[in-house]
Amino acid sequence: MTSNESGRRRRGPYAKSAARREQIAQAALQVFGARGYRGGTVQDVADAAGMSQTSVLHHYPNKQELLIAALKRRDAVTDGTPGTDECFAQSIVEQAQFNEGAAELIELYAALCGESTTSDHPARSYFEARFERLRGEYGAEFEYMKSVGRLRPGVDPHVAGASLLALWDGIQVQWLLSPDDVDMAGTLKAYLDLVILPES
Amino acid sequence: MTSNESGRRRRGPYAKSAARREQIAQAALQVFGARGYRGGTVQDVADAAGMSQTSVLHHYPNKQELLIAALKRRDAVTDGTPGTDECFAQSIVEQAQFNEGAAELIELYAALCGESTTSDHPARSYFEARFERLRGEYGAEFEYMKSVGRLRPGVDPHVAGASLLALWDGIQVQWLLSPDDVDMAGTLKAYLDLVILPES
Repeated sequence: MTSNESGRRRRGPYAKSAARREQIAQAALQVFGARGYRGGTVQDVADAAGMSQTSVLHHYPNKQELLIAALKRRDAVTDGTPGTDECFAQSIVEQAQFNEGAAELIELYAALCGESTTSDHPARSYFEARFERLRGEYGAEFEYMKSVGRLRPGVDPHVAGASLLALWDGIQVQWLLSPDDVDMAGTLKAYLDLVILPES
Repeated sequence: MTSNESGRRRRGPYAKSAARREQIAQAALQVFGARGYRGGTVQDVADAAGMSQTSVLHHYPNKQELLIAALKRRDAVTDGTPGTDECFAQSIVEQAQFNEGAAELIELYAALCGESTTSDHPARSYFEARFERLRGEYGAEFEYMKSVGRLRPGVDPHVAGASLLALWDGIQVQWLLSPDDVDMAGTLKAYLDLVILPES
């Protein structure tokens, strides 16, 4: 396998390599989103990227590396930058609204997240780390709100953090299966309105 | 394929057939719970049941039938009988506590639920129907509570129904990945305490 394949115009090896890696990551996202990690093959990814399996494996040496590339690509698109303390609730709702236009990315997430709990799944540590990080971030936001008197009395900030994350994951699956019956952003807003008190 | 295989004691064809179907359903539950539907094979189910693939296919003619058998077996164990109106919240929390002792069944559910959103998955209609039914049942419970003045003002009974279901599914996945950090039953109780007012 050489980096200068016949019949293709060269744009410089680095730019070309980066563009190819991006193209393959996008193809991996499509394939694993549609079939799950265990259901999708490296050949499927190669077909979706319009290149040979050998070319794909030159850039990502195995299927697990393809999975990580797909998850990173998803994160780059759907995990927005955190808002300021003041607009935490608003940024969550806006992110959920944005995600409604990115069903393919939500599908990848839902399929892999469920699969990741099965034996020896290569994405298990990704999801463990993701959940731990987000429980911490959301919990800290709710703790801040408690400190300024804006969390409903009796609500535990860390339970609220884990709950917001769980609610989001769960309602995404319901929405993927029945988009006309489920309001993803509205469900999250209702929870946030319940636990966060209006500014006095 | 005959129903009277050599070397096995006969207990009457009907009892024997029912026991075998049960044995196979339990094996399917283990295999699909550990590897997902796409990752598990009919041969894996036969190995787990300690019988030949031909015997398995005699009782369940294809892999999809095995999947449905596994889901029905899960439902029989983890979906308790609904409580009376008065103890809806309590029955939800008790069911979640029971499920903490049945991680294998929760794993099957989480893996297949995520997978079911992928293209042409045979469990898709099962999950669509399940979610629609439970949204209706939970929504009706919260509507009843609203009618007797026990739903927190401003809470929509049907949003609360979908939210309870979503929260439960989402927190199960977090619990499967980090059982020491996540309190499944406690998280559901916190939500129910938030939306249901104490009896006056």
